[in-house]
Amino acid sequence: MKHIIVVTGGSRSGKSVYAETYARRLADAKGVGLVYIATAEAFDAEMQTRIEEHQLRRGSEWANLHAPLALAETLYASDGQGVCLVDCLTIWLNNLIFSDMDISTATEGLLTAIADRQDPVIFVTNEVGSGIVPENALARRFRDEAGRLNQKVAAIADEVYVSISGIPMQLKP
Amino acid sequence: MKHIIVVTGGSRSGKSVYAETYARRLADAKGVGLVYIATAEAFDAEMQTRIEEHQLRRGSEWANLHAPLALAETLYASDGQGVCLVDCLTIWLNNLIFSDMDISTATEGLLTAIADRQDPVIFVTNEVGSGIVPENALARRFRDEAGRLNQKVAAIADEVYVSISGIPMQLKP
Amino acid sequence: MKHIIVVTGGSRSGKSVYAETYARRLADAKGVGLVYIATAEAFDAEMQTRIEEHQLRRGSEWANLHAPLALAETLYASDGQGVCLVDCLTIWLNNLIFSDMDISTATEGLLTAIADRQDPVIFVTNEVGSGIVPENALARRFRDEAGRLNQKVAAIADEVYVSISGIPMQLKP
Repeated sequence: MKHIIVVTGGSRSGKSVYAETYARRLADAKGVGLVYIATAEAFDAEMQTRIEEHQLRRGSEWANLHAPLALAETLYASDGQGVCLVDCLTIWLNNLIFSDMDISTATEGLLTAIADRQDPVIFVTNEVGSGIVPENALARRFRDEAGRLNQKVAAIADEVYVSISGIPMQLKP
Repeated sequence: MKHIIVVTGGSRSGKSVYAETYARRLADAKGVGLVYIATAEAFDAEMQTRIEEHQLRRGSEWANLHAPLALAETLYASDGQGVCLVDCLTIWLNNLIFSDMDISTATEGLLTAIADRQDPVIFVTNEVGSGIVPENALARRFRDEAGRLNQKVAAIADEVYVSISGIPMQLKP
Repeated sequence: MKHIIVVTGGSRSGKSVYAETYARRLADAKGVGLVYIATAEAFDAEMQTRIEEHQLRRGSEWANLHAPLALAETLYASDGQGVCLVDCLTIWLNNLIFSDMDISTATEGLLTAIADRQDPVIFVTNEVGSGIVPENALARRFRDEAGRLNQKVAAIADEVYVSISGIPMQLKP
């Protein structure tokens, strides 16, 4: 029942809502649980409150995990617990860069974890490369790495969607 | 003959030309008039000249209205005059923010006006969320609000198009 | 055997790889050669090395031409040598702006060269207008000109694709 899905799109394009709806539908159809892997760090009390509000909104049927860096390990550890939603890959990449981790090693680890995965997994990610070239060198590096990561994960996904103005458009298959 | 259409896209993607062509086609097919609601403010003489050039280009069959803030009221006032083209929602949102208006109240008003609308209306809007996260806090807020507004209007639209390199792609239905 | 193809997309969206694959496929099917027209300037030794690495990666079956400004002339000169890949239009536009050339004259020249072209040609270009309006006036001008150029070339193309996360989506026909 392996099933790899990617939902990409600009910011506030409705990606996360679509991914959550899709995850619930899959879990209901298969009669399995729901796992949410957040990659965002709670830097302060305000952000902690916002994360807890989001958990409440999603409801108690979700197991909530946190993987700002150890995404591959968390995917392995949660395999067997049902449909997993990872929100999102670009924040994970940002965390890797700010922690000065090696991007290509981390990406290889993620791709291996996806290949080894048994339960379905849905990845939310962001389109960040359709504006003007950023003046900031770190932003340019992030933009390049995000584009490469999105291509690699989409290449091994079974389904890829791009959300535009809240409307998901299927790119693959 | 209610008919709600959204045309979104990046800057200089051909949105407005497609929306104008669509509005003319609808008006011709129904034998009704054409109303243009501009949301941009003429801050100086140069912009005033540009607005007048655009009006000349569109031609005399269009009634020209101006709604930098009172978009809902202008939609009500023009209902019954034929096919209406609103160009564009993101500039309206920008005006709301700079006038320190309450975005959610204004959005509710707009959505009610759309629900009450009898004549067809075409909204042009902008995709602004597919670049790097802006460093400027106001730009981040605008980006978030624009994404939310686009989702809400697209959700109640009958048809949604995204224009890419001048080519409209239908997202809905 | 004229055939005009445009591949657009954000940065690191897989445009160039798709365009190269398409060019090889066309050249193989027609039994003709392959011409690569690079528009990027090698400003320093590092960039020169990178350009040479890319040429090695593409392989010796490609003739490599360089047209930072004289794109129309290079398209005429290479006609008859097989399938041509131009990578990319937005860098050519950037070179025109920095060399203070007249954009509309250069664009007219390019469109005429495309109209006169006998051999197939694939243009890679960038989507740059789906982020926030840039604060930098030159960036705003580049963004406007790039959108206009993309529309003009797409309008006379036989096929247009947008690449998202490495997946090409056909916009035209």
